[in-house]
Amino acid sequence: MKLATLRLPRGTTAARVDGEYAVEIGAPDVGALLAQPGWQEPAAAADGPRHPLAGADLAPVVPRPGKIICVGLNYRTHILEMGRELPAYPTLFAKFADALIGPYDDIALPAVSEAMDWEAELAVVIGTEVRHASPEQAQAAIAGYSVLNDVTARDYQNRTLQWLQGKTFESTTPFGPYLVTPDELDGALIMRCEIDGEVVQEADTADLVFPPAELIAYISKIITLRPGDVIATGTPGGVGHARKPPRYLADGDKVVTRIAGVGELVNVARRDG
Amino acid sequence: MKLATLRLPRGTTAARVDGEYAVEIGAPDVGALLAQPGWQEPAAAADGPRHPLAGADLAPVVPRPGKIICVGLNYRTHILEMGRELPAYPTLFAKFADALIGPYDDIALPAVSEAMDWEAELAVVIGTEVRHASPEQAQAAIAGYSVLNDVTARDYQNRTLQWLQGKTFESTTPFGPYLVTPDELDGALIMRCEIDGEVVQEADTADLVFPPAELIAYISKIITLRPGDVIATGTPGGVGHARKPPRYLADGDKVVTRIAGVGELVNVARRDG
Repeated sequence: MKLATLRLPRGTTAARVDGEYAVEIGAPDVGALLAQPGWQEPAAAADGPRHPLAGADLAPVVPRPGKIICVGLNYRTHILEMGRELPAYPTLFAKFADALIGPYDDIALPAVSEAMDWEAELAVVIGTEVRHASPEQAQAAIAGYSVLNDVTARDYQNRTLQWLQGKTFESTTPFGPYLVTPDELDGALIMRCEIDGEVVQEADTADLVFPPAELIAYISKIITLRPGDVIATGTPGGVGHARKPPRYLADGDKVVTRIAGVGELVNVARRDG
Repeated sequence: MKLATLRLPRGTTAARVDGEYAVEIGAPDVGALLAQPGWQEPAAAADGPRHPLAGADLAPVVPRPGKIICVGLNYRTHILEMGRELPAYPTLFAKFADALIGPYDDIALPAVSEAMDWEAELAVVIGTEVRHASPEQAQAAIAGYSVLNDVTARDYQNRTLQWLQGKTFESTTPFGPYLVTPDELDGALIMRCEIDGEVVQEADTADLVFPPAELIAYISKIITLRPGDVIATGTPGGVGHARKPPRYLADGDKVVTRIAGVGELVNVARRDG
């Protein structure tokens, strides 16, 4: 099953993607849907108004997650090629919901930053409340997968030791277009990021040091994970900041972030004021 | 005006503190109250059921803030005595709402950490949406002040470069008891933390490198601040981790966190399972 959050004139609605159409489910967005225990059943059975997917205005697939937990340094090949050791623990930091944009919205390049960079990531969305999850419970807590680009202001990220301020600029983080349930996917996923048609990142999620279920088990020992919470699992090599000279997003750059079988984000970077 | 969130058998309610009583305001909690534009008027006029404050069960004053933004390294005297330079920018990191507890609740010492430490802080609560705030707008966006103890798992904080995982353990962060509006306060505030009666932290908020309005102006250049969002403004010297030998919270320790004129948190640390 593929789910999306549609923007309609009267507000947003959760929808199930059936081929070329989005079929309304009786919930204001995918986050609200996931908060209903047993959400799979009404989502699968819904037979509401249909909207052509082509040209549909999509919101972030979960518009206001209770938590957005991001992971740093999580692609094995990239860590090793940088000459670093594999980490013993996942590096975790946060992002706030006001940073999210829809899968086809413009990325707002802030007036105060000159160093906005891309970070293609596989996002995992929680579908069941878990605390102290076993590996099996962690796996079962996954509602589905999506695509997120953790667009980062490198100058702000590096102003202090803590990355948050570079990671949570308003309207910079595309997230969607769909939540794809685990039964639709099979094994590792190929992720790609293109800037104006040039492939800048390419990786296989089999290369993750801490795969999704392991992250859920780890985080749930710290805090309860709830339906709609999002984990952005980290980015592979190929970011603009690591280039010599560095390359950052410019006004008009087209950013395409794609995970085969999961979905594709298409966003144009626009200078914000 | 002093506001609180009371736990009643039917759920929580926002209340105005009138001397020895809490008077119900028609909102489920202080966060929901602040989300109503012009909240000051109904809060001041409310004449709902009254509850004696003595023995009242108080929730975190804003139970589910949309954002909790914490500040590191923000007390001038402490930074200078550590031999560091004053920072050019505030160090910002996040905490999730599931970490919050009420002002008299037990602090849950997690089974997985052996290094839970105290960090008394002045908390600022946003009352008006602001983005790109001028200093005057930032000051006007303050709904009020409260007390927060950013109890931290030092072992988890230092597992990786990013502090989040040590800062957001479930049910570790007392917050309250009241939100005190700015008109009730005059100038700098004396903050104290006591462990089992021993004063371990004592500071004057006049010593903050980045005072509340400056933090709001800075953060609002990054992201919109909304009613109910919380900024924990940082802790002064005197934490247990900096002692030789270090001292951490033990089962049964009584933690008192007090800011004169704002309020007092009284929490007992309890080993969690």
